[in-house]
Amino acid sequence: MTAASPVLVFLDPAHPEGRIADAGQPQLMATDLGATRGDGVFESLLAVDGRPRKLQAHLDRLARSAATMELDIPPAADWRAAIATAVAAHPAAEELVIKLLVTRGVEGAGRPTCWVSAALPGPAGRVQRENGIDVLLLDRGYDSTIAERAPWLLMGAKTLSYAVNMAALRYAHEHGADDVIFLSSDGKVLEGPTSTVLLAHIEDGVKRLITPQLDTGILPGTTQGALFAAARNAGWELGYGPLEPEDLLDADAVWLVSSIRLLARVNHIDGKPIGKDPALAQELTRELAAMLAEEDGI
Amino acid sequence: MTAASPVLVFLDPAHPEGRIADAGQPQLMATDLGATRGDGVFESLLAVDGRPRKLQAHLDRLARSAATMELDIPPAADWRAAIATAVAAHPAAEELVIKLLVTRGVEGAGRPTCWVSAALPGPAGRVQRENGIDVLLLDRGYDSTIAERAPWLLMGAKTLSYAVNMAALRYAHEHGADDVIFLSSDGKVLEGPTSTVLLAHIEDGVKRLITPQLDTGILPGTTQGALFAAARNAGWELGYGPLEPEDLLDADAVWLVSSIRLLARVNHIDGKPIGKDPALAQELTRELAAMLAEEDGI
Repeated sequence: MTAASPVLVFLDPAHPEGRIADAGQPQLMATDLGATRGDGVFESLLAVDGRPRKLQAHLDRLARSAATMELDIPPAADWRAAIATAVAAHPAAEELVIKLLVTRGVEGAGRPTCWVSAALPGPAGRVQRENGIDVLLLDRGYDSTIAERAPWLLMGAKTLSYAVNMAALRYAHEHGADDVIFLSSDGKVLEGPTSTVLLAHIEDGVKRLITPQLDTGILPGTTQGALFAAARNAGWELGYGPLEPEDLLDADAVWLVSSIRLLARVNHIDGKPIGKDPALAQELTRELAAMLAEEDGI
Repeated sequence: MTAASPVLVFLDPAHPEGRIADAGQPQLMATDLGATRGDGVFESLLAVDGRPRKLQAHLDRLARSAATMELDIPPAADWRAAIATAVAAHPAAEELVIKLLVTRGVEGAGRPTCWVSAALPGPAGRVQRENGIDVLLLDRGYDSTIAERAPWLLMGAKTLSYAVNMAALRYAHEHGADDVIFLSSDGKVLEGPTSTVLLAHIEDGVKRLITPQLDTGILPGTTQGALFAAARNAGWELGYGPLEPEDLLDADAVWLVSSIRLLARVNHIDGKPIGKDPALAQELTRELAAMLAEEDGI
């Protein structure tokens, strides 16, 4: 098995534990609205030593995304059973990338297509986790108040319509960077195409961990949520935006956090080095990475 | 065969005329980036009596969308061959909905998945074509100058990431309307989720057909293009936006035009009747519909 051919487990009323399907064969209908309209929702999470991390947070977010899209999906227990089946098919894997996928289903059928995939992680995430990343600031085109006004824009739902997110990453790669931080059209810091933005400020010995506020329409980050809970327990102060690019450039450290790559320290933003004291930034990164390593089932 | 189970023809180097596939069986890999990221492009067009309409215009737009997405797709000749194979499988069909689909392909494979589907049209388009439609104005969230500034937003490409377009249509249906006209955040008229906006003004006997200008990031409409060419030949004046909601409310007629539903007259926008003289609006609709019926292979 390679990362490109995962274990597939479809949610299927006839198979309470999920139906294992051959990932080497076509499994989706060509008229599935996931494939023809990007019409669906998903989650990606990490399993370590057979144990999915932050599973309830991901199931909760999947349910919220589905509700935003008016998709009626199976209950959490069915997802948990299918995930357990997928993980059990990889008894020796240390780390697994678990994806939960829901499409609106085959055109005209009126019921979603739901499956779980479990694959070995690729090498890119680990490299970026260790070396940090260079980031470009790109305009997401929406102002920071749009989410409240325009529910049809599906802000805050993790939909399958990720073409813009993928295009932004391609744009970054073609311009010598690894990743992107999106800004709103009114200049507020939003999120990465597949990650949440975090920054740290240290003042008079007080450590403060800050993330953009959610009412800008960004996705609520499960890793950010877990890290905030752990950092608060460790005595950090917590803060929520609004943030502007200056706040990133002034920070003692900036990270993009996500469930698979975990904590990726930002070395440069638009070519400018981030964090006046690299040793401090690395120390903060180690401290937060240790919290994440201990985090379990939050 | 029903509308939900079309004829499928995959583009395949081993089959120069295209490879016919069983639409009743799964044909897509679960790791295809079309299904997992809405990462691809498409076109929809009508074939009448076995003859695809505006085929070159659709192939040109598919190629432009693919170039915007940095997708390397087969040449037009391969698409024409596959379309001919798909159409030939429906010898008795008066009208066929032809879809051309491209995804970025199976994760890691590095080559797109390309197919053509040909299905009988559903009844909804014909009903709306005959009775007209009620429309809501909804904010698309982008300002009208974003396309030039932010190529990563893929404005003007017809991508598979249509979740927002589908959500806007659901919102309209739940609020008593049939369709949507998107506005930019700075109040300019853009397009429908699956159509182009046209309006007519008659002044001193001069008929003027107007559509929003393309630099707002809207999709260049193949039906609008064909209608503009035909209307110019028939002595109409042509105009291009910027348009604001007032221009729609003041028009003698407003339409949403697209390749399958063709010309759908807008009866109400946000509950307000459109066109002071319904008889005139119907006459204009008949005149343009006759042009479209004659339009062939433009």
